Amino acid sequence: MTDLDILDRIDAPRDLQPLSTDELDELCAQIRKTLLETVSHTGGHLASNLGVVELTVALHKVFRSPQDKIIFDVGHQVYTHKLLTGRRERFSTLRQEDGLSGFPRPNESEHDIFYSGHSGTSVSAAYGVVRGNQLNDNRSYTVAVVGDGSFTNGLVYEALNNAGRADCRLIVVLNDNEMSISRNVGSLARYLAVIRSKPEYVRFKAGTEAVLNHIPLIGKPLARLIMRWKTRLKNDLYGSNLFEDMGFRYMGPVDGHNLSQLINALETAKLVKKPVLLHVHTVKGKGCEYAEQHPALYHGISKFDVNSGEPLTSGTNFSEQFGKYLCGAALHDRTLCAVTAAMSLGTGLRGFEERYPRRFFDVGIAEEHAVTFASGLSKTGMRPVVALYSTFLQRAYDEILHDGALQDQKMVLAVDRAGFTGEDGETHQGIYDTAFLNSIPQIIVWASASYRELHEHLRRALYIDPGLVAVRYPRGSEPEFPADFEPSFDTFDLYGAEDAPIAVVSYGRVAAYAMQAAAGLPVRVLKLGRIKPIDPQAVDAVLGCEKIFFFEEGVRSGGIGESFALMLLERGFKGTYSLTAAPDCFVPQASVSAQLRRYGLDTQSIRQKITGQEDHHAG
Amino acid sequence: MTDLDILDRIDAPRDLQPLSTDELDELCAQIRKTLLETVSHTGGHLASNLGVVELTVALHKVFRSPQDKIIFDVGHQVYTHKLLTGRRERFSTLRQEDGLSGFPRPNESEHDIFYSGHSGTSVSAAYGVVRGNQLNDNRSYTVAVVGDGSFTNGLVYEALNNAGRADCRLIVVLNDNEMSISRNVGSLARYLAVIRSKPEYVRFKAGTEAVLNHIPLIGKPLARLIMRWKTRLKNDLYGSNLFEDMGFRYMGPVDGHNLSQLINALETAKLVKKPVLLHVHTVKGKGCEYAEQHPALYHGISKFDVNSGEPLTSGTNFSEQFGKYLCGAALHDRTLCAVTAAMSLGTGLRGFEERYPRRFFDVGIAEEHAVTFASGLSKTGMRPVVALYSTFLQRAYDEILHDGALQDQKMVLAVDRAGFTGEDGETHQGIYDTAFLNSIPQIIVWASASYRELHEHLRRALYIDPGLVAVRYPRGSEPEFPADFEPSFDTFDLYGAEDAPIAVVSYGRVAAYAMQAAAGLPVRVLKLGRIKPIDPQAVDAVLGCEKIFFFEEGVRSGGIGESFALMLLERGFKGTYSLTAAPDCFVPQASVSAQLRRYGLDTQSIRQKITGQEDHHAG
Repeated sequence: MTDLDILDRIDAPRDLQPLSTDELDELCAQIRKTLLETVSHTGGHLASNLGVVELTVALHKVFRSPQDKIIFDVGHQVYTHKLLTGRRERFSTLRQEDGLSGFPRPNESEHDIFYSGHSGTSVSAAYGVVRGNQLNDNRSYTVAVVGDGSFTNGLVYEALNNAGRADCRLIVVLNDNEMSISRNVGSLARYLAVIRSKPEYVRFKAGTEAVLNHIPLIGKPLARLIMRWKTRLKNDLYGSNLFEDMGFRYMGPVDGHNLSQLINALETAKLVKKPVLLHVHTVKGKGCEYAEQHPALYHGISKFDVNSGEPLTSGTNFSEQFGKYLCGAALHDRTLCAVTAAMSLGTGLRGFEERYPRRFFDVGIAEEHAVTFASGLSKTGMRPVVALYSTFLQRAYDEILHDGALQDQKMVLAVDRAGFTGEDGETHQGIYDTAFLNSIPQIIVWASASYRELHEHLRRALYIDPGLVAVRYPRGSEPEFPADFEPSFDTFDLYGAEDAPIAVVSYGRVAAYAMQAAAGLPVRVLKLGRIKPIDPQAVDAVLGCEKIFFFEEGVRSGGIGESFALMLLERGFKGTYSLTAAPDCFVPQASVSAQLRRYGLDTQSIRQKITGQEDHHAG
Repeated sequence: MTDLDILDRIDAPRDLQPLSTDELDELCAQIRKTLLETVSHTGGHLASNLGVVELTVALHKVFRSPQDKIIFDVGHQVYTHKLLTGRRERFSTLRQEDGLSGFPRPNESEHDIFYSGHSGTSVSAAYGVVRGNQLNDNRSYTVAVVGDGSFTNGLVYEALNNAGRADCRLIVVLNDNEMSISRNVGSLARYLAVIRSKPEYVRFKAGTEAVLNHIPLIGKPLARLIMRWKTRLKNDLYGSNLFEDMGFRYMGPVDGHNLSQLINALETAKLVKKPVLLHVHTVKGKGCEYAEQHPALYHGISKFDVNSGEPLTSGTNFSEQFGKYLCGAALHDRTLCAVTAAMSLGTGLRGFEERYPRRFFDVGIAEEHAVTFASGLSKTGMRPVVALYSTFLQRAYDEILHDGALQDQKMVLAVDRAGFTGEDGETHQGIYDTAFLNSIPQIIVWASASYRELHEHLRRALYIDPGLVAVRYPRGSEPEFPADFEPSFDTFDLYGAEDAPIAVVSYGRVAAYAMQAAAGLPVRVLKLGRIKPIDPQAVDAVLGCEKIFFFEEGVRSGGIGESFALMLLERGFKGTYSLTAAPDCFVPQASVSAQLRRYGLDTQSIRQKITGQEDHHAG
């Protein structure tokens, strides 16, 4: 990298202060260049970060972080923020083991306020900070930066409703790029489009106020007066605005790639002693042709060729296989519906969406609504399949229980990215669903370890099992099973030495590693296909063993290894039992294989464990 | 009961058709009388049901249930609906074991569409029904009836956003009584107050359209034309409305106690081929002086004197003790804050609210926001205590994990109504938090079995334990412990015969029953105070036993009894183990003591179990 002379001088946000407007523009160009070059090597969130370069520079120019708190919603658009807050030199370690996180992480920097990775939390958290500051007589500013995608999430609305009209300073920046991960859906998106299309003269013009602000004593009250007058005029002409109805002072839309407009608008927002919503219009992927044209593709990506934008990896995976099965089944079953929450690409449903648009429902970043909506579909005789990543499914725990299991209707949860998920780190692990689904009455849960199994489990879930069924499968591609293993697709499989005194029990992809690890050893491997309820016959199959090792790619507390232990004990098991699982901590970023190794769940660690040669490397 | 001559003739909604307006008014009076008399004997939700008598009669007059689906949000306002749909004669069994549920229950009647008891699910479910009906070419109507309290819940918003502007028929009736359980909070409540106060001439007048509709062929298109014209006029004069911005046709406000206005408005809503929001203004407690004056008190109540409204039960309880502790602690600790979700009365926080209004936060029916907001408070050095019922806490599973445990800040969850909760039935049981909190990394969970313990556990949670801590305690009053039991308030207590070969393990109030059951038997009782993490010394204390019985007032799968079993096994336990817990099913309404008995968790059942004389009465 060369020609980064301005960026190279920014060690902290205060270094932005002496820069001229031209220099700030040049800084933005240098940031974009750095983003492209780094993300092409590390993978990560590209389009969203390219879209907020100017906005982030403007925020750090106007506010004094970390006294003022800037809270980025979801947090995957935080790369420029990291470059400006002393993490420039470590930026090439992005998303790698022991490197910089792709999300805000307070343990990295005092400028990162909350760990975040899920959508819609920023306004709630910011409003909490605002009220806490009030109690402390701390008059600093609090800013939440939220994408329009997150505005489809109910948590944002709960926070807006609570904060609106409150007697406090809270600045919510709506980063409107007309997208979440997929093109944004719902009535709010269409409403924003209407606002953006209104004639220029009713748009917010921050220029006047900002000029007036340079006359410090007279300027500020005058600016406020003018703004009040403008708001009245606007209301008279155009009626009030949804955000004003929610009790926010609305400002915008502002061009999110025009630094002086942004800076003026943010300076004006600081003058308002009430909650403000500043509407900023940005272009996702800005400044990079292929990312601008295909923002969904370049939302979160693997390593790619920086010139062409072509990905450097390929091959099928569980998500694609899921989509393939569903398309095939929908051909014959006209009741089959697919529901997803702003994730049609990631969950492999793009093909279903194209072929069966009437039976495809993308409900926005609204996992709870997705599940309850599917319950409604089911009530009419439809067979809904709700496809979500494991980490996002946990947002709908109550709906799974109250609107899913309790209703006793046919509904399938397709739980993608179950298990370790790699580089996104603590906030995105899929290691909790085994435990939280375990506590849902009457649900049936299948853990698929191969593509064929995924197809069979989906078929059973849709057409054989009663009621609510979850099918969980990992990120990426299928593991390699021993050539002589023939899956039954039933509730469990046995493999290896039939009467061996040692048993290894597992499920999902780790079962494949367990079989590999057992090669040549006097060990029988029990692979669970259905993990809730556990088939009592599966337990009986290992009850006579002297030693049982259970390996689980999920949390230990409340998980399947504990349920299995109870069943063993209640059946009079007298041998020894050892559970290896994700420990009671949060799992930081690394590759999936490194995470499996770290917690003793790869082939080598399993072999060491069952042969008694383990070294204690778990963290 | 006498003089119920009209109500006595209503066996199904169709029986409303021949009634004149005067007869319908008289019917409403007879329904009110029945509601008052029954609820005074059974307890239940009084004020909300008195408020929707006319609305429910109008709905069943205009729509053809069960072909048309009427979905009541939360569902506690469904008593009139039950009286009109063939359940009149069983109404006196309301909320009693094997009697009528106080909530919609599809297993009771084809007129009840979904099991419900949690807030904000109806619009999601209704929209699912609408889309499913479309796929089936079924042209019947779908109506969601939602209180303004539920409009503070994000799930309603996710559904409105998804359904708004959609090409479908969906009627959302906003039952605006200016209340949820407590007086409604937030900007939407204030917005609704503004709408209600607008001059009469821009209010919706359904009269004209309804008259025109009696001329079937010409009338309907003409009515539509007039309505379009009116909407335009209204928008020109008053600007658009929040619900219109969300893509709904707005109608209202309508007087919710004027039957002909209601019927006309609903008939008109049927003509619209887009999503409609009908704003109905009702008075909570209508027609009953004490309920109108104190709607929060008469929201959900125990048996009371029908003349005076005085409750028939009294005495302190865990909720009151919780509030008492918090008030005392807040006197000395100026960082202590209380957060609740529309439940200041139920959680015992009314006193705190009065004494420390700046540190009290009622965020609306928004449990997820409550937790994330508290995380923000905590970031500023405050010590937030989030008080929720166990059943509602489960709505914030993701926020507990992502915005609570992960942030590693001081936050306390006060989990009220933990365990069996009695007459509300399946949707309100507090038997899941043990399991779902068990899966949250690093959280500490205390189970309080007495008032003194509750105080001590709260003190430890606030001032000794690090990070996120939950303190769970049951509905009602403390159980009776043996006189010679002296609690340590530590992670566990031992009671009874020290070297006995049989151990009984439990936590919470069931530990008291276990001690009573063990009286005179050669049994040692281990009472866990801290249930996550379980103290290894507690396990060691019973490791040498021949027989261990674990009794758990929580679900079996994923719960504490399984965690305990794993710890025993991993430490080489060779005896027998038996877990008695809530089974893998939903627990229907009955008294708490009946529920404990049913699942083998009362003193007598425990004694039978440990002496081997159990009869298998569990369902």
